[in-house]
Amino acid sequence: MAASKKPVLYTYFRSSCSWRVRIALALKGIAYDQSPVNLMKDGGQQLTSEFQTVNPMQQVPALKIDGIILSQSLAIIEYLEETRPNPRLLPEDPKKRAQVRMIAEHIASGIQPLQNLSVLQQMGEKKLEWAQQCISHGFKALEQILKETAGRYCIGNEVTVADLCLVPQVYNAERFKVDLTAYPTICRINKALLELEEFRISHPSCQPDTPSELRA
Amino acid sequence: MAASKKPVLYTYFRSSCSWRVRIALALKGIAYDQSPVNLMKDGGQQLTSEFQTVNPMQQVPALKIDGIILSQSLAIIEYLEETRPNPRLLPEDPKKRAQVRMIAEHIASGIQPLQNLSVLQQMGEKKLEWAQQCISHGFKALEQILKETAGRYCIGNEVTVADLCLVPQVYNAERFKVDLTAYPTICRINKALLELEEFRISHPSCQPDTPSELRA
Repeated sequence: MAASKKPVLYTYFRSSCSWRVRIALALKGIAYDQSPVNLMKDGGQQLTSEFQTVNPMQQVPALKIDGIILSQSLAIIEYLEETRPNPRLLPEDPKKRAQVRMIAEHIASGIQPLQNLSVLQQMGEKKLEWAQQCISHGFKALEQILKETAGRYCIGNEVTVADLCLVPQVYNAERFKVDLTAYPTICRINKALLELEEFRISHPSCQPDTPSELRA
Repeated sequence: MAASKKPVLYTYFRSSCSWRVRIALALKGIAYDQSPVNLMKDGGQQLTSEFQTVNPMQQVPALKIDGIILSQSLAIIEYLEETRPNPRLLPEDPKKRAQVRMIAEHIASGIQPLQNLSVLQQMGEKKLEWAQQCISHGFKALEQILKETAGRYCIGNEVTVADLCLVPQVYNAERFKVDLTAYPTICRINKALLELEEFRISHPSCQPDTPSELRA
């Protein structure tokens, strides 16, 4: 039966959206297989007609699970949360859930897409400056919000979907050499999260498709 | 008591993300006041320190409701869905809910941010061409997905969060003069939705802050 097979994650080691889903799968203890899609090789393996039948959006991550294929990282995570609720990644209180989703969406719609490959390719020489500017602008707002909502993690002391978005975005910020000294709350939470095994084993530096020269 | 007051929506008539929330409020029959924020006037009223205390992300929409202020359109809509569940904007079946969220996120993270003001300002002369390219690329995938999921609307025959994202994005496509002939399913659903009163009364052409020359 298709639904009883192990889920398959279509993923790329360095894709921050793929990393969000890898963390969710790890936290929920869901065993899965990886099917790597190299976004750089052959002009981008996500553009092949073969992959387009998996995900017409031609993006990773995509997750084959329960007989269907889902894409879009937050939609995948919400599905996992509804079908595998333990441990929970959204608080019980609706106002707190809204705060979690607000931070997740701020990163997933307000920061990450602006520094994505397709936009950067249009920016030519201004590429690095543009990425830094988008991330800094988003982090400035995020820092202010986290001062109200954070405990040990983004919202209080439990790991939530917001944290799954935060850590991969800080990783991108570091790749683009963003000066993070103005964001002490973001840095503190990122550090605390990276101490958790589920964040470490899903890290871009140790995936099956991580090139040997980038391995931790 | 703060929680019993009428909600206040910080909005801009032409913001597609604000329109998503206006549709949700209309469908759920929630009476609210509008506080218009003019994104063009005075270099952008969303950038004032006064508005920053409302929303540190310096964006519309933001919704003051139940004693808190929420931002990010999909997070706001999920909150409304959890606290005011009737009529529902997400199906009961988890797989269908996932499809709804996948389409909503495809638009909210995969299309809209790429054709947003801040990116377009960087594109100079290529502005219109870039916006058309982003929307066309996103609509090509969306058309293919909708062929699988659509009934009268995006997912079957009930209005869902996906539809709340679709109509404002088609409006943006028309503003940027995107050729829509290759997307018959998108166009058909958009037309069916615009026949509903809740989509019409929340339309950018008839808001309190719509300039007289743009009124329908």
